[in-house]
Amino acid sequence: MPSLRVDVIDIDDPTDARVDDFRDLNSVDRRPDLPALPGGRIGKGLVIAEGVLVAQRMIASRFSPHAFLGVDKRLAELADDLADPSVQGVPFYRASAEVMAEVVGFHLNRGVLGAARRPDALAVTEVVASARTIAVLEGVNDHENIGSIFRNAAGLGVDAVLFGAGCADPLYRRCVRVSMGHALLVPFARFDDWPRGLSVLRDNCFRTISLTPGEGSMPLSDTVDAAKVAFLVGAEGPGLSETVMRASDVRARIPMSRGTDSLNVATAAAIAFYERARAGTT
Amino acid sequence: MPSLRVDVIDIDDPTDARVDDFRDLNSVDRRPDLPALPGGRIGKGLVIAEGVLVAQRMIASRFSPHAFLGVDKRLAELADDLADPSVQGVPFYRASAEVMAEVVGFHLNRGVLGAARRPDALAVTEVVASARTIAVLEGVNDHENIGSIFRNAAGLGVDAVLFGAGCADPLYRRCVRVSMGHALLVPFARFDDWPRGLSVLRDNCFRTISLTPGEGSMPLSDTVDAAKVAFLVGAEGPGLSETVMRASDVRARIPMSRGTDSLNVATAAAIAFYERARAGTT
Repeated sequence: MPSLRVDVIDIDDPTDARVDDFRDLNSVDRRPDLPALPGGRIGKGLVIAEGVLVAQRMIASRFSPHAFLGVDKRLAELADDLADPSVQGVPFYRASAEVMAEVVGFHLNRGVLGAARRPDALAVTEVVASARTIAVLEGVNDHENIGSIFRNAAGLGVDAVLFGAGCADPLYRRCVRVSMGHALLVPFARFDDWPRGLSVLRDNCFRTISLTPGEGSMPLSDTVDAAKVAFLVGAEGPGLSETVMRASDVRARIPMSRGTDSLNVATAAAIAFYERARAGTT
Repeated sequence: MPSLRVDVIDIDDPTDARVDDFRDLNSVDRRPDLPALPGGRIGKGLVIAEGVLVAQRMIASRFSPHAFLGVDKRLAELADDLADPSVQGVPFYRASAEVMAEVVGFHLNRGVLGAARRPDALAVTEVVASARTIAVLEGVNDHENIGSIFRNAAGLGVDAVLFGAGCADPLYRRCVRVSMGHALLVPFARFDDWPRGLSVLRDNCFRTISLTPGEGSMPLSDTVDAAKVAFLVGAEGPGLSETVMRASDVRARIPMSRGTDSLNVATAAAIAFYERARAGTT
């Protein structure tokens, strides 16, 4: 077994202030994974990784964990990762499942948590520079959908995710969990000026493709063969705003059966990512 | 406004026995959408439709509703559907949102419910007879995933869903809701003898395709050009059993980026369905 770089500290008292960053994870007004608001009213601006796999990805990401809380079994499972120089001196608070449950406020069967402070956000220009395939989200305010989009992006070769107006926080705990930790690994950035900021994609020679079942759309498979492609997707129901669709180069549809609704946004995005990867391999 | 075929009956008392089929929807041991067990211990074997869209699909399906419970606003929204001869004489219990919440046990913001008794299950042979594209599930025990698979099947032209061993109940309320009611419309059946029953697919000239990221798999796009195709999918994590994969004609993979996990089962299935629909249009 490699030697651990973390400092293992046993926690027996669930009220111990040293584990406050993991406290009340489900509390509406105290959960630590909300962005810190002025006056410290809610949120600590932390990112929380749950479970061995997501903790591993956090360690490998730019979200360097500053503390862990976990049961002994998970500490052992993470031994290789906790030998990484990046976690030198980071406390690993070791507790029983019961003490952990009292701290976080519910029984957490994944058995380990990592906490990181949010680093500075990346700039859109930074994220776009080296990407060939990008997903751009507008109005996607469901954490599970955003998490799934990150997972699908990572699996199907999408290089970055960009957020337009009306999207939920990709660093919310549920989102990070559903993404299998890929929300920490796939670079993302927010547009400050929406939708005008989309011009950066044109400046970087991206073809912008609005996914929409609406009129005037081409079959998806006819649209993805550009050197650089950005898929624009909107929330289920409202879809993309007309302004955004007009600002894009082309509208693409996934052929659907009659009498059915559009697909879930993460599923539609996955199909677009797949079509893009497919075009690159044939 | 067309004339309603249902009998509108006002319910003011939440303990009224006439709405018992909608009572305690979330109760672990009393919820009416569980299969009826011998001795009436749990479940009533009902199918529950939630919301206007799913109620409409229930009316159009072979799961004929025998009662509705809803607020006046939803009654109005369903007026066209409730003029259908198939709901002749069916009671529509009209209640306030508060009374409804007391009956079902929580605030139901979709505002209307339909209840149907489970009709006889379809036979596999019956379901297979007229199908060209089928999804076959093994070990998929997550209601949300099953619901998504039905939704994706309906949207992307899959004719039927078959259940092997270890799958959850597609008529569970959450599954019906996530499927947008398509669990009531897309024909499905269960194999009694698994996996031996798969021979019915061979007898009906289906190419059976195991979705697996494992060794010996071909790119999905090279596998879907048969007249009849059945996609076999397993649960996330364990995937398909080796026995089932060996019994299939071909193993197909969705090309994935290195260092990522397999996709969510409903997402993987959606991509397979899309590839199949794509092959039919090009």
